[in-house]
Amino acid sequence: MDTPRPDSPRAVADAFWRTANARDWAAFQALLHPDMVYDVPQTRERVRGAADFTEFYRTWPGPWRVEVRQCIADDERAVTVLDFITDTQTMPSLAVLTVRDGRVVHIDDWWPEPYEPPPGVTPVVQRY
Amino acid sequence: MDTPRPDSPRAVADAFWRTANARDWAAFQALLHPDMVYDVPQTRERVRGAADFTEFYRTWPGPWRVEVRQCIADDERAVTVLDFITDTQTMPSLAVLTVRDGRVVHIDDWWPEPYEPPPGVTPVVQRY
Repeated sequence: MDTPRPDSPRAVADAFWRTANARDWAAFQALLHPDMVYDVPQTRERVRGAADFTEFYRTWPGPWRVEVRQCIADDERAVTVLDFITDTQTMPSLAVLTVRDGRVVHIDDWWPEPYEPPPGVTPVVQRY
Repeated sequence: MDTPRPDSPRAVADAFWRTANARDWAAFQALLHPDMVYDVPQTRERVRGAADFTEFYRTWPGPWRVEVRQCIADDERAVTVLDFITDTQTMPSLAVLTVRDGRVVHIDDWWPEPYEPPPGVTPVVQRY
């Protein structure tokens, strides 16, 4: 794949996680539109604005880092499929970043947790 | 956005949900590589092969349909953010379809459920 333009959703998503892992909060905030909105659809939590959102990440308790497993991106959005890694656990997350003019304007952050599968409806389902 | 090529991940993902909603299982299965693999990472459920996977969808109990809310796609993958709608509930799902030569070779299917948010760590988090 070609190197993405620096203002592309793919490049912005890459810089987003790189600066977050590096705790470079000035560079992190510079990637965000001042009026951006961060949503967690599962809890209906919302953080408004680049300053508050940066504070939200900056003050998250305990050590954490992100490993991006997949990044799928087009001209409007990037989806990062990642592991959020703390001292005690690794949680998968999918973040949908909407990018306009090289800055993040919206994030939907999804946290799918493990669960027991429903009773088998067909014999074709295996476990791995 | 330009009309995608018919073998692009975006077009294949669109046809995947369109044929599933239409219960056109012959057309649905034709979109799948014979050796495709379907995974649910949260439960570690797996279905192998286009025939078994089509059977898995075809025999899913009760009426259901899918409404695609967002599709983010590049040259390798499409992510569909969707509502899975039954008689009794609407569940969000994110499906990551990997497409090669116009056919689905792998699916990661994510089912993020509602949960209570953790205790507030900063005052910047609102509810919507």
